[in-house]
Amino acid sequence: MRRKLMVSVIGGHNCSEPCSEEAEEAGSIIAKSGAVLVCGGLGGVMEAACRGAKLAGGITIGILPGEEHSEANGYVDIVIPTGMGFSRNTLVAGCPDMVLALKGAYGTLSEICFALVGDVPVYSTGSWDIPEIHELSSLAELALVIEKIRSEKKL
Amino acid sequence: MRRKLMVSVIGGHNCSEPCSEEAEEAGSIIAKSGAVLVCGGLGGVMEAACRGAKLAGGITIGILPGEEHSEANGYVDIVIPTGMGFSRNTLVAGCPDMVLALKGAYGTLSEICFALVGDVPVYSTGSWDIPEIHELSSLAELALVIEKIRSEKKL
Amino acid sequence: MRRKLMVSVIGGHNCSEPCSEEAEEAGSIIAKSGAVLVCGGLGGVMEAACRGAKLAGGITIGILPGEEHSEANGYVDIVIPTGMGFSRNTLVAGCPDMVLALKGAYGTLSEICFALVGDVPVYSTGSWDIPEIHELSSLAELALVIEKIRSEKKL
Amino acid sequence: MRRKLMVSVIGGHNCSEPCSEEAEEAGSIIAKSGAVLVCGGLGGVMEAACRGAKLAGGITIGILPGEEHSEANGYVDIVIPTGMGFSRNTLVAGCPDMVLALKGAYGTLSEICFALVGDVPVYSTGSWDIPEIHELSSLAELALVIEKIRSEKKL
Repeated sequence: MRRKLMVSVIGGHNCSEPCSEEAEEAGSIIAKSGAVLVCGGLGGVMEAACRGAKLAGGITIGILPGEEHSEANGYVDIVIPTGMGFSRNTLVAGCPDMVLALKGAYGTLSEICFALVGDVPVYSTGSWDIPEIHELSSLAELALVIEKIRSEKKL
Repeated sequence: MRRKLMVSVIGGHNCSEPCSEEAEEAGSIIAKSGAVLVCGGLGGVMEAACRGAKLAGGITIGILPGEEHSEANGYVDIVIPTGMGFSRNTLVAGCPDMVLALKGAYGTLSEICFALVGDVPVYSTGSWDIPEIHELSSLAELALVIEKIRSEKKL
Repeated sequence: MRRKLMVSVIGGHNCSEPCSEEAEEAGSIIAKSGAVLVCGGLGGVMEAACRGAKLAGGITIGILPGEEHSEANGYVDIVIPTGMGFSRNTLVAGCPDMVLALKGAYGTLSEICFALVGDVPVYSTGSWDIPEIHELSSLAELALVIEKIRSEKKL
Repeated sequence: MRRKLMVSVIGGHNCSEPCSEEAEEAGSIIAKSGAVLVCGGLGGVMEAACRGAKLAGGITIGILPGEEHSEANGYVDIVIPTGMGFSRNTLVAGCPDMVLALKGAYGTLSEICFALVGDVPVYSTGSWDIPEIHELSSLAELALVIEKIRSEKKL
């Protein structure tokens, strides 16, 4: 048996319409690639990504800051309330095989940092300008990146 | 869309043959009831429960103390390395809709306490003798308990 | 330079008058022995122990579940808000050189377990009945225990 | 009784000679202002800051990633092993009244982000270029900043 490949999508809990569309498309690509989508479970980028993944038949995980399942957006299959507040960002960033960073604020940047510190590769479109992030020319590249990681990790 | 009902199985990472068989049966019952099995992701009770769930076609989640996916037993679908050491016990105990406690040591007891503190109902067969735990007369009751919780939470 | 010896006092955030007096006396003994008192920073046993330590000229640390310094009782010198909720119990129990357990509920028991799992020795008067806890015949013994640990650890 | 004002110093665990001198001076200023110095407890900037604080008669706290007191640098009075790995960064950044950021890598940037997310003001000399950080023209300003915060918070 092989464990499932996991991709975290991070970004603001407030987001513009174009950013929301991008997140939804990202979720769809992740689901179609057979990976599990992980996120912080709330609104904005997180909700849009989950919606995209669910519409494409995927599995979604939301790692929440609070203690209540009901805090999750409506597209999360597996709700993990942590009660750890913002410290849950270290889990969202540290548990997957790769991180996709969309536009976000300092919470998103903290997750980028935690991923880099933990040697989780970070890809992005239009997020923070940090040297070690791999900037994607477009989301179309995302499926290729996932396949490369799947092949490297034999998942 | 409804989130998935989650059941955490907790118990020793060393366990006797009868305890292992019980854990495997519990995993099977959880999977057949359509719930997701959550555990600490390591050996003993955790591995046996995951094996039972996978053989019955279920989904398994392992919330690991360490930082490496490879630390998980071979029956975990969704591996969540936390790097938080024993503090991850608070997640295993606090995130599900109910906890099933089998025989274990102080790690297991810490999880029982965290579940109770967080108002997560705890059921057991042969675990610690703690007033607020619901002792099952046999594992056959487990399916009924899961259905009751599912119905109460409308999941 | 030597680091300071640390003693965590754990127990209920509601406590009876006799239990409160015992906690205050324990805090006083800890302070007079030159150790730093650590606790969960809230009321009940925690507050009484801090009051005893401050009246005896000691240093007190409160590791809080919430994010606000103001949540601490009025006898805490060094307030550490964690925002981690009950997960902060793992810090209270895991960071000191020894734990003194007074009467408490499941939160207290979770801390006893975390201490034992992390090989932190646990002493108590009238707390949970757990095999590996060292029951003190009276608080008068506490000073001797602290000196023994100080001597063993050369602190 | 008033709790003690706390200042976290963050920065790389490897640091150049000039950066080390700056950290030591910062530690000295913090101690002379009567504040408690908090840090991640390891080497580099953390050790130099603690050394400066101890030479000036202050109190130092080290919040460690690992489980062992011995991991702390030799200038930490109060050692708090967390066993939480990099997640302990959220505590270092979130618990003080202000953060002073010196040169560091992604771990340091994660702490800057956690401070900002938690509304802890961040001051720096030569750290990451982030809009909401207050850049000090020199360390001489640090004492003034601490007094301002002390006065605002009535500590």
